[in-house]
Amino acid sequence: MNTNLDMNKKVKVSEIAAVAGVSPATVSRVINQREIVKGETYEKVIQAMKQLGCSINESPIPQPASTGLILINIPSLNNPFYGAIIKGARASISRHGYSMLINEGHINPGTIDLLVKTLKQNKVIGLITMNCIETSLIKKLSDTTCVVQCCEYNEDTDLPYVSINDIASAKMAVEHLLAQGKKRIAFINGPFRYKYAKHRLQGYMQALEEAGVPVDQEYIVQLPEIDSDLATSAALQLLNLSEPPDAFFTVSDVYGAAVLRACYLSKRRVPEQVAVVGFDNLEISKSLVPALSTVNQPKSQLGFMAAETLFEKITNPAIPNKKILLDTELIVRESSSL
Amino acid sequence: MNTNLDMNKKVKVSEIAAVAGVSPATVSRVINQREIVKGETYEKVIQAMKQLGCSINESPIPQPASTGLILINIPSLNNPFYGAIIKGARASISRHGYSMLINEGHINPGTIDLLVKTLKQNKVIGLITMNCIETSLIKKLSDTTCVVQCCEYNEDTDLPYVSINDIASAKMAVEHLLAQGKKRIAFINGPFRYKYAKHRLQGYMQALEEAGVPVDQEYIVQLPEIDSDLATSAALQLLNLSEPPDAFFTVSDVYGAAVLRACYLSKRRVPEQVAVVGFDNLEISKSLVPALSTVNQPKSQLGFMAAETLFEKITNPAIPNKKILLDTELIVRESSSL
Repeated sequence: MNTNLDMNKKVKVSEIAAVAGVSPATVSRVINQREIVKGETYEKVIQAMKQLGCSINESPIPQPASTGLILINIPSLNNPFYGAIIKGARASISRHGYSMLINEGHINPGTIDLLVKTLKQNKVIGLITMNCIETSLIKKLSDTTCVVQCCEYNEDTDLPYVSINDIASAKMAVEHLLAQGKKRIAFINGPFRYKYAKHRLQGYMQALEEAGVPVDQEYIVQLPEIDSDLATSAALQLLNLSEPPDAFFTVSDVYGAAVLRACYLSKRRVPEQVAVVGFDNLEISKSLVPALSTVNQPKSQLGFMAAETLFEKITNPAIPNKKILLDTELIVRESSSL
Repeated sequence: MNTNLDMNKKVKVSEIAAVAGVSPATVSRVINQREIVKGETYEKVIQAMKQLGCSINESPIPQPASTGLILINIPSLNNPFYGAIIKGARASISRHGYSMLINEGHINPGTIDLLVKTLKQNKVIGLITMNCIETSLIKKLSDTTCVVQCCEYNEDTDLPYVSINDIASAKMAVEHLLAQGKKRIAFINGPFRYKYAKHRLQGYMQALEEAGVPVDQEYIVQLPEIDSDLATSAALQLLNLSEPPDAFFTVSDVYGAAVLRACYLSKRRVPEQVAVVGFDNLEISKSLVPALSTVNQPKSQLGFMAAETLFEKITNPAIPNKKILLDTELIVRESSSL
């Protein structure tokens, strides 16, 4: 990395950050890409550096803003959900003249160091994460580069994010099933470490409680990952209960498709005997047999807004962190339309 | 980029390459990452440089091999096919201690310059492409970094690749439909610029010809992209012919799912009235109603072998370029099992 910091004595970036009252990542940007850091913040960092006895070499750096790279982290390429989000992000990133690469994989104590190394060794000026990440690790990332969270976010940090209201979205889906006259509504959920899983469970419970329908723990299934086979088995098990569910709400269309498959295998008519509503509005969902009702996430917009928020933050680190929740919509198709 | 080439006079990398009889990318690697280029090739380049009046600064570069980045280019994140390939590639790349990022998008005259810039500005030591790329553009990429093609490859270049035998695979699928007693087999193909599309059409035709079944051009549909809606419409149109097909072979499970949907909408029983075989063995295919027969591509292995081939080429550029075709297998499920 082309730092042109004249070190009159050894000073750590973190010390400059502490004196300037900004993040270490902001200090790095002032040093390496100062043309993209706005006036006030820039001045703070320069003053702190002077105070600590180091200064920036004032000769111009032949480095246009657009040499930087934006990195997008997604949990898995196997879930087609992320494709449309990245399409939206790409639209924003191209507009700003930057290039974008994708990092796939979970961020955990075993992978964080390699990711931080990748951020540092390449000209990564900003990171959009879509993973569920421990607070200590997301802080490590935001000390390294500018971070915006998309979909999953940490409620106990002050980072910018763009997401949806999962509680209201899940509630809307379950209220639709109740309105179709369904009473025994099963819920197939994902791993509970995800914010979406916690919030969608809340929305499910709220809808039932407000309708005076008792919550039956037997109808709530928590799966360890987004996997079709697991979900089909779980649904078949529920359909074999002495009092089987008459509807399913699932946190992913992948699970929704698996429930349709379980209904086919156990010879239940959809939606007459069992209604199904998924989540995400994947490309495939409208092609399923029967077509799957779902909660549409504004995927392109999520990606676009996350990237725009990132650029705002990169060019002006002093602005307050934006926390944006976008609206979802219920798409009623054959699988729940009585 | 940290070139430490002592230029006594101006010499282009391409000139050194021509004299040494190696690619310009190899010269770049000798200059920048000489610790990973094997003896004989290294010597050739050094001799050529001496001959042209320039030399490498012999002071050691503090740059371990594992600081390099491997880039994988995929056409689209919307096709879940690529997820499993990348999983395989990741296994190899981790084993070699490198990190990996994904570049999504088509490679064409409008995008090549940004990609080359991205390759140069980051420490990209190798590139795996899964796109269909014009020969002049793939040459531009292989002049910049070490390239291995995966799935799609250019038949008119000498680059290493790992792919499948598309002709034999398509032939196997169509022969299976013929063996089920089907005679009017429609074929839904993808964009013809892809090698896979050309070869699978050949395989389809060969199977029909060998069985003495006349090829009916009306049954062959060429779609411009992998899109469910388009494929459903195309299938419905075929099913409305006065002599509708009694089977479909499609080049993607995404299309296969769309055909199942078209059969549902036009009230045809699958597989009795219409049998369907897709391609790729996507995760979702076994969950469809009915479960979709398909040609399984050894996706993880394709990715793993592509990355292993890349590392062999990086560490020893002088070895002949490997051209590997892996075996596929037919998976017969409900949609074609009579």
